[in-house]
Amino acid sequence: MTENKYPGKDISDDDIKTKFPLVAKKYPNHKSSFDIANVNFGGDLIPIFAGPNMVENEELIIETAKSIKKSGAHFLRGGAFKPLTFPYRGKKYTETREKGIDWLAKAKNTVGIPIITEVMEEKFLPLVAEVADIIQIGSRNMQNYPFLTAVAKTGKPIMLKRHYGSSLRDWLGAAEYILFEGNEKVVLCERGVSVPHTHRATSRFLLDLQVVPAAKEITHLPIIVDPSHATFWRPWVKPMALAGIASGADGIMVEVHPDPPNAAVDPLQPIDFKEFESLCKSMDNIAKALGRKVL
Amino acid sequence: MTENKYPGKDISDDDIKTKFPLVAKKYPNHKSSFDIANVNFGGDLIPIFAGPNMVENEELIIETAKSIKKSGAHFLRGGAFKPLTFPYRGKKYTETREKGIDWLAKAKNTVGIPIITEVMEEKFLPLVAEVADIIQIGSRNMQNYPFLTAVAKTGKPIMLKRHYGSSLRDWLGAAEYILFEGNEKVVLCERGVSVPHTHRATSRFLLDLQVVPAAKEITHLPIIVDPSHATFWRPWVKPMALAGIASGADGIMVEVHPDPPNAAVDPLQPIDFKEFESLCKSMDNIAKALGRKVL
Amino acid sequence: MTENKYPGKDISDDDIKTKFPLVAKKYPNHKSSFDIANVNFGGDLIPIFAGPNMVENEELIIETAKSIKKSGAHFLRGGAFKPLTFPYRGKKYTETREKGIDWLAKAKNTVGIPIITEVMEEKFLPLVAEVADIIQIGSRNMQNYPFLTAVAKTGKPIMLKRHYGSSLRDWLGAAEYILFEGNEKVVLCERGVSVPHTHRATSRFLLDLQVVPAAKEITHLPIIVDPSHATFWRPWVKPMALAGIASGADGIMVEVHPDPPNAAVDPLQPIDFKEFESLCKSMDNIAKALGRKVL
Amino acid sequence: MTENKYPGKDISDDDIKTKFPLVAKKYPNHKSSFDIANVNFGGDLIPIFAGPNMVENEELIIETAKSIKKSGAHFLRGGAFKPLTFPYRGKKYTETREKGIDWLAKAKNTVGIPIITEVMEEKFLPLVAEVADIIQIGSRNMQNYPFLTAVAKTGKPIMLKRHYGSSLRDWLGAAEYILFEGNEKVVLCERGVSVPHTHRATSRFLLDLQVVPAAKEITHLPIIVDPSHATFWRPWVKPMALAGIASGADGIMVEVHPDPPNAAVDPLQPIDFKEFESLCKSMDNIAKALGRKVL
Repeated sequence: MTENKYPGKDISDDDIKTKFPLVAKKYPNHKSSFDIANVNFGGDLIPIFAGPNMVENEELIIETAKSIKKSGAHFLRGGAFKPLTFPYRGKKYTETREKGIDWLAKAKNTVGIPIITEVMEEKFLPLVAEVADIIQIGSRNMQNYPFLTAVAKTGKPIMLKRHYGSSLRDWLGAAEYILFEGNEKVVLCERGVSVPHTHRATSRFLLDLQVVPAAKEITHLPIIVDPSHATFWRPWVKPMALAGIASGADGIMVEVHPDPPNAAVDPLQPIDFKEFESLCKSMDNIAKALGRKVL
Repeated sequence: MTENKYPGKDISDDDIKTKFPLVAKKYPNHKSSFDIANVNFGGDLIPIFAGPNMVENEELIIETAKSIKKSGAHFLRGGAFKPLTFPYRGKKYTETREKGIDWLAKAKNTVGIPIITEVMEEKFLPLVAEVADIIQIGSRNMQNYPFLTAVAKTGKPIMLKRHYGSSLRDWLGAAEYILFEGNEKVVLCERGVSVPHTHRATSRFLLDLQVVPAAKEITHLPIIVDPSHATFWRPWVKPMALAGIASGADGIMVEVHPDPPNAAVDPLQPIDFKEFESLCKSMDNIAKALGRKVL
Repeated sequence: MTENKYPGKDISDDDIKTKFPLVAKKYPNHKSSFDIANVNFGGDLIPIFAGPNMVENEELIIETAKSIKKSGAHFLRGGAFKPLTFPYRGKKYTETREKGIDWLAKAKNTVGIPIITEVMEEKFLPLVAEVADIIQIGSRNMQNYPFLTAVAKTGKPIMLKRHYGSSLRDWLGAAEYILFEGNEKVVLCERGVSVPHTHRATSRFLLDLQVVPAAKEITHLPIIVDPSHATFWRPWVKPMALAGIASGADGIMVEVHPDPPNAAVDPLQPIDFKEFESLCKSMDNIAKALGRKVL
Repeated sequence: MTENKYPGKDISDDDIKTKFPLVAKKYPNHKSSFDIANVNFGGDLIPIFAGPNMVENEELIIETAKSIKKSGAHFLRGGAFKPLTFPYRGKKYTETREKGIDWLAKAKNTVGIPIITEVMEEKFLPLVAEVADIIQIGSRNMQNYPFLTAVAKTGKPIMLKRHYGSSLRDWLGAAEYILFEGNEKVVLCERGVSVPHTHRATSRFLLDLQVVPAAKEITHLPIIVDPSHATFWRPWVKPMALAGIASGADGIMVEVHPDPPNAAVDPLQPIDFKEFESLCKSMDNIAKALGRKVL
């Protein structure tokens, strides 16, 4: 549990001008660097997050953890709590939600890979914080400021996804709510924005890679790229993951499933184990061309 | 306090097909009609919400309440809790926040006009619910589902603002979270969307009036229009308010301030008392041309 | 044939500052007012343009001309030359194109109603200029500057449609090319812009009514609104036409067909004769509420 | 001069289904490959186009040609004819326009590097076609179909820039107009689209790299990427050029100027000779990581 180092009432106008915003670079090459579960962020390494959209069952998540770790992934991703546009959830969803965190914990302990997972509600925060090495805050909660504050106070590292309708300014403002609580391990994640043209009926978003150099111009925080949710289309994941690295991203998050066509949600999106293995090599090649590395 | 009439676990797939979504029209001319503080929504009357962006002080809010009521407004709007893109709030803000709700209560009781105000956090919900006749949920909380559920459970009428990056489907999904708790007094509010061109550097949004007939095609819920936040520019407020009514809107929300150039926030946006009085007459003229009324 | 009053070489930097842009208002209430075929633009009257997307045959266009004139339309619209996203055109298209202008001429002479029609290529300009009372320049040609100049030089009044991806600045720049040739009878026409959300799979554009007050703030040129192409959906045409008038539009262009479901192109879009008659009355009611008139 | 191999009148509905669109891939790995001025497109090589926005004077263009050729560029780009949003052009512009093509010809002959330049009007087409190895069609002319046809008929290779508000479908439709005339040497060029957020006041567009895999899914035509016009901001050019290559682009077009801050137009955009030399090496490194090459 962190303490609010900057209690609201005591900030003078002078302080606002000189000390804030905390997200801003203080000198031209200012770049945050920190470790999460012994994986370095903000340096030469470009960490990879991989796993299924949804933690469907114990077997699937353990199998996936083993495979992606072998291929080079640094973190296992998987959703136990899923945002739903409409409020209905069948029995299966509720059960999965309750057990998903346990299954992630088993995968973590059995396979030895750190975990990132999303938390949607404050009441589940202690449960998630116990297992997750990084807590993911989803797009829809990006501007849920009391929630950002509550998650920040756990002291756990946080990945803050950009809302699909948000400007860079709105996004950095949200990150500031976290830094403001004294929690400095914040990773930004671009995952696609709403635009007039996405070129497929199944694709709802455009991956905004221009935001990578734009963010780096202003903030010292690492920024990672998620091509899976942006493209919503398997064949575009690889080119956009490689383009993400070339644009300067400090990490890549990609959806991987043992049997994509039978994934419980969004089956057009994940790549399979073999494709992920190949992707890791290609990402590493691109990273090396830039003086960085993935593997 | 309402009860969840549709507990998640008991919804069968058949129910989902036949009873849901609750926001959907059940027959071609299906339109919700209900009273809030004796003001009818969803009928011939087009209720008007007016007031300052921020409840700056007691005198200002009482003066405004008197003036707008006389001109024809049905509800006094005013923000005590304001969303802030960055987390710093000076002393003035914190004080205002604590006293703003009291000042709104005084205006309500002194002037005799019902109140709409925004609540940003669950912890202030009881405080706000005691004074507000309608609770406003702001754009940034549109997809904060646990919060929607908590506000719904107070049983108070709710105005749900559309997020500036959200589709109609996302918006109706958010409304469904409220109806799902058995709270049926929900009013939708369009307030501008992010688009490539807004035609002024000071304007960040485009008022989407096409969403009015689009919403009415699908849902029985009343939909109102807020031209002030969308245009962010005083001279465009009147034409867009009138266009809102002509497009079929069931209400208009407009920012009014006794001294616009000296408003504490967004001084380019509010109209003054005289302009509001004139606007009410013009809106009524348009409404009458459609067989409806404002005054 | 007009003369270029401002030959490029002779414009000094001082002139650019003081005399240009020609589209700009010279004083706060500056508004162009001119007659086209004895119909006044830029005054209290709000002229209506109605007719089919495509001039399918002689009988249809004469029948339509009679009906819309009786209902109150001031101009018959109809496309003989149609822009095609792909270059294939069947026999029927080529025939129609050749005869369409003749059929429009017959409708004009038989029924006594002025004509607006689009010209797509310079080679057909003399043909179109002979029949049309207003020459329409379509969205795709908005930035085709040599073509704008060629059409301007005919001296005929011009309706300049906004490109669906263009800013107000780009649009006014295009209009300037016409005024620059000494042709001052220019009418702007908003017909929908590309945005992230249009709320129907069949709708590709959002009608931007905010551009109406935005344009009036800057330019003296009349601006009209086309709700048919913007919404691409019959049931939204009426509310958006009324909203267009309420937003301050100086004219309305609407697609009307004797048998909409069997229209040769875009059958989801046109309204029928009866709906148009009713729409004219409603538009006139809204116009009267604003101190203007349609009928 | 090419012949129209597919005269409009003779296309049967069956032909449309089986032979068209010509832009479409005929088999999964179908990719056009052709040479322009002995430089191969659509293969392993990723050709680079570099040079100033505007051909300011003879010395500048020759100096630039020498430098970029030495660094690895395959084509010299430079605008003699510039699109102008407003029609005024001072003496300098008109002079430059007349001499620009000559200066490009001198650079071509002196330095021995092929040329790409834009043509804006049909009347200058013979002049441009004589010097240019590739004729560039700018964004604003993308939907100027008679002009596309005229340029296609010269038989010269064509680079077709995407309009900033156009969908992939609209863009391929425009390319089809060129192929339809029997001209098969068409290169597509993505140069940024209008979106709600570009993250800098000076940036008007977002580079859409997702369109690269989207285009390759559908068409056999090579697609290149122009990060200079999209970002409008020197520091973002390098990361977006590298990302373009990683996304699968078949070429890169970049603005280079000997003295960027003193460039006649858009001085925030070009990189200098040294930066270009370094960029070429970085692009080649990325290309090699993908099994392709720049140098």
